Amino acid sequence: MSTPPLTAADIQKHLDNLTKPPGSLGRLETLAAELCRIQQTLRPVTRPRSLVLFAGDHGVVAEGVTAWPSSVTGLMITNIVRGGAASSVLAVATNTRLRMVDVGSLAPEVPSTPTYSARKVRAGTRNLAREAALTVDEFLAAVRVGQEEAERELLAGAKMLATGEMGIGNTTPAACLAMLLADVPLQQAVGRGAGSDDVVLARKRQVVDGAVARARLQSGQDRIAAVASVCGLEIAAMAGFYMAGARGRATLVLDGYIATAAALIAEDLQPGTMKCAVGSHLSAEPGHAAMLQKLNVAPCLHDWGMRLGEGTGALTALPLLDAAAAICGEMATFAQAGIDRAGDR
Amino acid sequence: MSTPPLTAADIQKHLDNLTKPPGSLGRLETLAAELCRIQQTLRPVTRPRSLVLFAGDHGVVAEGVTAWPSSVTGLMITNIVRGGAASSVLAVATNTRLRMVDVGSLAPEVPSTPTYSARKVRAGTRNLAREAALTVDEFLAAVRVGQEEAERELLAGAKMLATGEMGIGNTTPAACLAMLLADVPLQQAVGRGAGSDDVVLARKRQVVDGAVARARLQSGQDRIAAVASVCGLEIAAMAGFYMAGARGRATLVLDGYIATAAALIAEDLQPGTMKCAVGSHLSAEPGHAAMLQKLNVAPCLHDWGMRLGEGTGALTALPLLDAAAAICGEMATFAQAGIDRAGDR
Repeated sequence: MSTPPLTAADIQKHLDNLTKPPGSLGRLETLAAELCRIQQTLRPVTRPRSLVLFAGDHGVVAEGVTAWPSSVTGLMITNIVRGGAASSVLAVATNTRLRMVDVGSLAPEVPSTPTYSARKVRAGTRNLAREAALTVDEFLAAVRVGQEEAERELLAGAKMLATGEMGIGNTTPAACLAMLLADVPLQQAVGRGAGSDDVVLARKRQVVDGAVARARLQSGQDRIAAVASVCGLEIAAMAGFYMAGARGRATLVLDGYIATAAALIAEDLQPGTMKCAVGSHLSAEPGHAAMLQKLNVAPCLHDWGMRLGEGTGALTALPLLDAAAAICGEMATFAQAGIDRAGDR
Repeated sequence: MSTPPLTAADIQKHLDNLTKPPGSLGRLETLAAELCRIQQTLRPVTRPRSLVLFAGDHGVVAEGVTAWPSSVTGLMITNIVRGGAASSVLAVATNTRLRMVDVGSLAPEVPSTPTYSARKVRAGTRNLAREAALTVDEFLAAVRVGQEEAERELLAGAKMLATGEMGIGNTTPAACLAMLLADVPLQQAVGRGAGSDDVVLARKRQVVDGAVARARLQSGQDRIAAVASVCGLEIAAMAGFYMAGARGRATLVLDGYIATAAALIAEDLQPGTMKCAVGSHLSAEPGHAAMLQKLNVAPCLHDWGMRLGEGTGALTALPLLDAAAAICGEMATFAQAGIDRAGDR
């Protein structure tokens, strides 16, 4: 950059000049400071913004690691596109452009529309309990889909980008990635996902433990192959989305457990990507906190117990980012309001 | 009511029928359930909505209990009305009608406008460290101002009402009320307000301790006189606002420490008022949690460290209520989406 960077001190000085006791807006002020740092301006923006959801299915569902069958992925793709899902209604409520990209579901292909893109790399992953879920080529193809989708949103003018997923079974690959890329211990990494009982949980832990052990052996020689072996197509696409979003200077908004697993991949492949990211919520999945810590990203909502996916955490947090940006960019200063500050006297 | 009331079970059944694993939206679902219970409908609304701010000054400022002089109250009234304050910009960001009512500041009266009403009961309270801050008549007059302002918003169509305050020194009467009406211990009740150092804090504790001891003696014979003796005009007005809002079947959104002190008065004068209320944030003031507990109201934002007042906590939480209402009223059911539920099979 040719202009000198905006330092943390510059940002703090600006926030402290606004007509409120310093720090009295708490987290709203630290969020504002994050947006200023990322966007290198004292008037950060949160619009236009897009949420691109990636869908994919998982061969590992054959192991009985979920409470829902893979067919639900396709039904939910339709529900999301038709406006009936949580993400659909929250996108409308927050004035966020929403698109769904099928990068690897088992559902029959349907023609693309402005809000739905059929971009399947393959129909579901292989069963990661038995073999590598994806080859390196498949993984990289899914990453490229994500990159292209982010570039499309950037071209359309998006300044803030979020991504999320729909994929029955995808807490299993996400748990593998949390262990592989953020050293999250097994007991923490494998939670109940979107509704697992004790039997399913035990099975899931066994599957993840085995797959990660295999991936770790491979990781020394071929890190990308190791990641691909426990990944999902929608997770790879989200990683690519973050990478291209950061390159395009968008502000990234993380979602929950699966999206954060994708963020770990993005940071691994393109270090520094997550410097453009703000957190949304801390998932009910126990491993999420450690993953966010590894990425040095703080969530906005700590104890909201959300665990749906579909970008719903990001959508819920967006208005909090709007509030932070409004505070920062639109409040009067003490000088403008003609107020002597306490301590200045 | 002639129609049978909507039970908690009815509401839960509706939420569990929506296309998401039960409970997977966490706090968003419990918030939705609160809105349904209060509004007795499965399609709760959050608009139109108004935030009415009440301003007043405090004789106790003469004791050196604040970092800011009373003149700041008047300057901030102007700043809020002109659109430069935190509350002003957050009201715009959240599409909330904002009005400022001067019920007792020391600032010179200026003519009323659509967004500013001059309705002074008196110019500031008496010094509660030395004598009763308000007489019963003054207190009740301020309560009436608040009631009339809520009625005005209800007539204009508001379905959701929030109130907040501007009044240098008002954490001192609020702390007295927290002790008197919610039995909050002194050390918890008296926090740093909007920027007190150790010396100011010690002085404030001494003042509050004395005033509450005096008010408690009086409380047995004349409870309203006891409350009035440690109250503020803007606090009394907020109490009236909540009372009339609840009678008019609005959903009330609480703000921080001072507003919750007013809520304690409202609940004391008109039991059941707070059944219509949802919480917004848990203030950085240490006594706030106990007050909310007494009112059986849960905050949305727990660890946001906000302590500004002006309704900023309520405004920050409003979009979370929008999200909860959207989830509840606009998502498709499993039947509509053609999905068999896990566990139904």
